[in-house]
Amino acid sequence: MTSVLESSITSSTGQNMALFLRALRGENTPRAPIWVMRQAGRYLPEYMAVKAKSNFLEMVRTPELACEITLQPVRRFPLDAAIIFSDIMTPLPAMGVQVEFNPGPQLEPLRTKTAIDALRIPDQAEIAPFLEKAIQLTRRELEPTGTPLIGFAGAPLTLAAYLIQGSGSKEFEDFRAFLRLEPALAHTLLEKLTEVSIRYLKAQIAAGAQAIQLFDSWAGLHDETTYREFAMPYNARVLSALEGLAPRIFLAVGAGHLYHVIQELPCEALSVDWRTPLERIRQLIPGKTLQGNLDPAALLGTPETLERDALRVLKSGMGGAHVFNLGHGIFRQTNPDMLARLIDIVHGFDRTQS
Amino acid sequence: MTSVLESSITSSTGQNMALFLRALRGENTPRAPIWVMRQAGRYLPEYMAVKAKSNFLEMVRTPELACEITLQPVRRFPLDAAIIFSDIMTPLPAMGVQVEFNPGPQLEPLRTKTAIDALRIPDQAEIAPFLEKAIQLTRRELEPTGTPLIGFAGAPLTLAAYLIQGSGSKEFEDFRAFLRLEPALAHTLLEKLTEVSIRYLKAQIAAGAQAIQLFDSWAGLHDETTYREFAMPYNARVLSALEGLAPRIFLAVGAGHLYHVIQELPCEALSVDWRTPLERIRQLIPGKTLQGNLDPAALLGTPETLERDALRVLKSGMGGAHVFNLGHGIFRQTNPDMLARLIDIVHGFDRTQS
Repeated sequence: MTSVLESSITSSTGQNMALFLRALRGENTPRAPIWVMRQAGRYLPEYMAVKAKSNFLEMVRTPELACEITLQPVRRFPLDAAIIFSDIMTPLPAMGVQVEFNPGPQLEPLRTKTAIDALRIPDQAEIAPFLEKAIQLTRRELEPTGTPLIGFAGAPLTLAAYLIQGSGSKEFEDFRAFLRLEPALAHTLLEKLTEVSIRYLKAQIAAGAQAIQLFDSWAGLHDETTYREFAMPYNARVLSALEGLAPRIFLAVGAGHLYHVIQELPCEALSVDWRTPLERIRQLIPGKTLQGNLDPAALLGTPETLERDALRVLKSGMGGAHVFNLGHGIFRQTNPDMLARLIDIVHGFDRTQS
Repeated sequence: MTSVLESSITSSTGQNMALFLRALRGENTPRAPIWVMRQAGRYLPEYMAVKAKSNFLEMVRTPELACEITLQPVRRFPLDAAIIFSDIMTPLPAMGVQVEFNPGPQLEPLRTKTAIDALRIPDQAEIAPFLEKAIQLTRRELEPTGTPLIGFAGAPLTLAAYLIQGSGSKEFEDFRAFLRLEPALAHTLLEKLTEVSIRYLKAQIAAGAQAIQLFDSWAGLHDETTYREFAMPYNARVLSALEGLAPRIFLAVGAGHLYHVIQELPCEALSVDWRTPLERIRQLIPGKTLQGNLDPAALLGTPETLERDALRVLKSGMGGAHVFNLGHGIFRQTNPDMLARLIDIVHGFDRTQS
């Protein structure tokens, strides 16, 4: 079924560009391309085998390991894109911030003018040369199949959440307090993170990343006023700086109350978490490619409930360009066979039918 | 300033009913009543003094202690309502579920037909006689000031989240998977929780609770389809069963994507978290009293930012009945003086001015 559909796509469009990149250019493709967040991750036995022998930071900072981990899901499944194995904390050490993983990020909370002023803004080439190398290696490996490679970064306010709080947190209350107590310092920090994020993403694109995703994983903490002041200008600057360099995907989690604000961002695609149906976002933002938004818990269901849930997302994504994905990262408990099944469902869904 | 306003209210309306209850009846009161979620809690030194000598379950299950803790914030601050000190897990032991706190709830995950079938549906008087006693004691103590007392319960799907997951969780993935793997068992569990919640809330009202709040603290985990299937019918049944017995407040957290669904619930008031401006909810649901919705982080700011943030909420709440509250529980780091300041700001805000 998949192969019939794929050949009909090739013959009718006559294009060789990967389906994922066509969808990011706004094309209402006859089938939806699919990749999944954290596809190179803990649900894969081959990932756990690498992890048993190295710590997380080594895995991120060793180009051969990062390349290998990036390729693992692409070897196993017919995914339509790969995403370089890394972490949103990756650019921070070059700024002078020590980050450890235990297993979530742990760092010295950054809350003083002295500490924020001391943050370096490294040259593009200094930020993460190991990641550039990993991207080059991975691109070379992906060459035969033409599978596109995605680079990524954390949005400035999401990075600031970890930097100010000092770790992940359910409520990030110290961070939320800091935005009120020290707004000027917060803006200084966000300026620096914005500049570094631009350089970091440009470095990834220069190394071969064919699309980028900006992860605002903690957008959902904020009300609209806060988000407009502390997130939007910086997100807009990062995304604008990449205009024309590579297609840009913006992800916000828990942001059902913010899409009317987020729609103003300059990007080709918006990645939607599982909470809001894509058709509602399509009505609000008719021009953009939508990415998402299957609940990652759907992969923990039965094959039948998975099909039901995936078809609902596929139908909800019709009427415009759609990149199929989960609404958030794949859970480590996921049986890889369920992901194989999902890819099959997505590849078998003909978007030219009404 | 407060006293001038209060006396003008009394003289202009000639009513003796507490401001909080008037607002719950839909009255666009000249000033907003205020109480705050977790007002009897860890930010108060007098609470910590009780906690140093007893564990959490003892505090909940000893009427004199629960009464004392309930009264602590009302003695210290001119709050417009008290809420009985308890926990949403309180009705579970009478159903046969062991709950420990460490510090969050810990229980044996409930995932089999045998375990769910074994859950008891206790008589109203059996569920929490200690809580009924605590409510009676507290009402007696509050008599001289006329401060109304609120009772509460967890919404069935939020209770089910803890019961199935076995504890609090960032993602509740086992619970979300269970709704797909065992929907019939989930419905059986929700039926039982609904019946017990109705009896439990009726017991609180019979003991003297003058309003009730149903806490759907984990509503925000779910997409609309899931929420319509597993939450709405049970929330509606609990709330309907209390019609005419006491005013009903429904709270959903992280539910910015669900208010168009939640608006169908039979209740007098909707408690909104800090993410969505009250005026937007008012447009969607013109008839209901709105409760909320200051970001609890506002109390960790400066007196100036607190005033700015509180005034924004007060203005956003105009045009209909408003009970001022936080959008979520008060943080334990809060300086009690900041809550005093907030109450002063709310009491000083004249809602009859445009």
